Amino acid sequence: MTDIAQRSPQVFAPALTPFNADLSVNSEAFIGFCRWLVSQGAGLAVFGTNSEANSLALEEKIALLERLAEAGIPADRMIPGTGLCALPEAIALTRAAVALGCAGTLTLPPFYFKPASDDGLFAYYAQIIEAVGSDRLKLYLYHIPQFTGVPITCALIERLITAYPKTVVGIKDSSGNWENTERMLREFPGFEVYPASEALLEKALPLGAAGCISATANVQPNTIARALKAWGTPEFDALQAELKVVRGIFQAKPMIPALKHVVAKAFGDAGWDHVRPPLVAADASWAEGLMAELRDARFDMGAGQ
Amino acid sequence: MTDIAQRSPQVFAPALTPFNADLSVNSEAFIGFCRWLVSQGAGLAVFGTNSEANSLALEEKIALLERLAEAGIPADRMIPGTGLCALPEAIALTRAAVALGCAGTLTLPPFYFKPASDDGLFAYYAQIIEAVGSDRLKLYLYHIPQFTGVPITCALIERLITAYPKTVVGIKDSSGNWENTERMLREFPGFEVYPASEALLEKALPLGAAGCISATANVQPNTIARALKAWGTPEFDALQAELKVVRGIFQAKPMIPALKHVVAKAFGDAGWDHVRPPLVAADASWAEGLMAELRDARFDMGAGQ
Repeated sequence: MTDIAQRSPQVFAPALTPFNADLSVNSEAFIGFCRWLVSQGAGLAVFGTNSEANSLALEEKIALLERLAEAGIPADRMIPGTGLCALPEAIALTRAAVALGCAGTLTLPPFYFKPASDDGLFAYYAQIIEAVGSDRLKLYLYHIPQFTGVPITCALIERLITAYPKTVVGIKDSSGNWENTERMLREFPGFEVYPASEALLEKALPLGAAGCISATANVQPNTIARALKAWGTPEFDALQAELKVVRGIFQAKPMIPALKHVVAKAFGDAGWDHVRPPLVAADASWAEGLMAELRDARFDMGAGQ
Repeated sequence: MTDIAQRSPQVFAPALTPFNADLSVNSEAFIGFCRWLVSQGAGLAVFGTNSEANSLALEEKIALLERLAEAGIPADRMIPGTGLCALPEAIALTRAAVALGCAGTLTLPPFYFKPASDDGLFAYYAQIIEAVGSDRLKLYLYHIPQFTGVPITCALIERLITAYPKTVVGIKDSSGNWENTERMLREFPGFEVYPASEALLEKALPLGAAGCISATANVQPNTIARALKAWGTPEFDALQAELKVVRGIFQAKPMIPALKHVVAKAFGDAGWDHVRPPLVAADASWAEGLMAELRDARFDMGAGQ
């Protein structure tokens, strides 16, 4: 449907956001990390859940997008998160992403009022699309009901792709509910469905998944990219097995602090351990166990390669 | 504990926010409505849930606070909502409220990540308090787990009032769980506990409740204010009964569109019906029934008095 879909399946990382000790954003480290992710074959779903996007101010996000572009990070590899509770802010951020030439936006529903009706959610997305008013907007819906409390139903997808077929082009399904992912894949052929875990590739790719947008793409981007390329060849199975082991290790820990801790170790920069409240930084009670499990699994992030 | 507590019990209205047809904020109508609420004996919990606060941009909220102050609405009658997912934004809004001399702030926890730990929530409130760094900050916690997914536990209250006894002075309990309200009232004498419904006054006032902060204070502020003054006199029971009838009518409808519809009718300004997505405006299928029920209850908002 879009350029992205015409390419082979892609992996996007919801790039982690590094903070200084005073919890201000460390833009330099962010740019360096994004550059590394791209070099490893990953696209950038900056301002995703795992980026602590909702712990960032709107102006911090707009400034970071501009910094990434200035630093030469290719905008056509970015699908920033732009969904916010306040419509004017969601419009402003989506507009900024389009202005910079981003490949798309990954747009949460407003997540304070619940339950939200499909009429209300349709109006939210419609107003963003109409206000931005650009053919260049490629909007990906973001279904993550465990955090939003506001599911994106198949009925809503149907309404949105009927009204805006060239704009509403895909979805990230972070529900962790495979039956839901499968239903979206089967009901909406050509619509780009991204499961939120590389562990699901073996089930999702045969049904036409567009790839994956996964938290753990922050730490194993290259292995995921290689697995996507190896799809349909005998090499795929071994890579899928490797991905599942690492994914499983992180999934049993507080995900964001765990990812940041591993990045801190891999890049030799303890500043990566900082998180903004309400998250709590990696803790000796589990972080050493995490590192030991990863060593046992022969995990190597390959940072600096 | 604060000036507010030293006064008799108070009612605060989470003032509804009027929008123009293009969904921009109608500041003039907002100022006029706030002025009316104060004239009726209510304080202003502007930017509460029923204000659609989380559907307003940060800069809209700061601008509205300044407009209210310029219009001569007394800041010592205001406890604006200032809690936001992004700590820098929560700090900026809390700082603006303190700078304008507001009586307090009603501060939501960050509501995207769930579950949130008490350690993480303590850090969030502590960072706001430390960053604002003013003795004039009187912070009210906001417990509304049905929307935030992030409860304010008694253990967290205990930690916060121990660390910041002069700053963390109260809570609004919107849980609708009377046992929880009762527990807070009993466990924290002197801490200002505001139930979120005037229907609970007869149970809450004997236990020392500070008053109430109620959605329906937007439409029956004066009756609530009179009930609070009549507490301990024979008149109270009749007023409490009247309040409960009206509260019950609204509670069975979509609360915010229903309140806005009644204000639209009372002030003769249909613009009040506008809501921002994901809310959906009052609908003929229920709005006429609402008006009929209110007529049957002899409800009169007394607007313009």
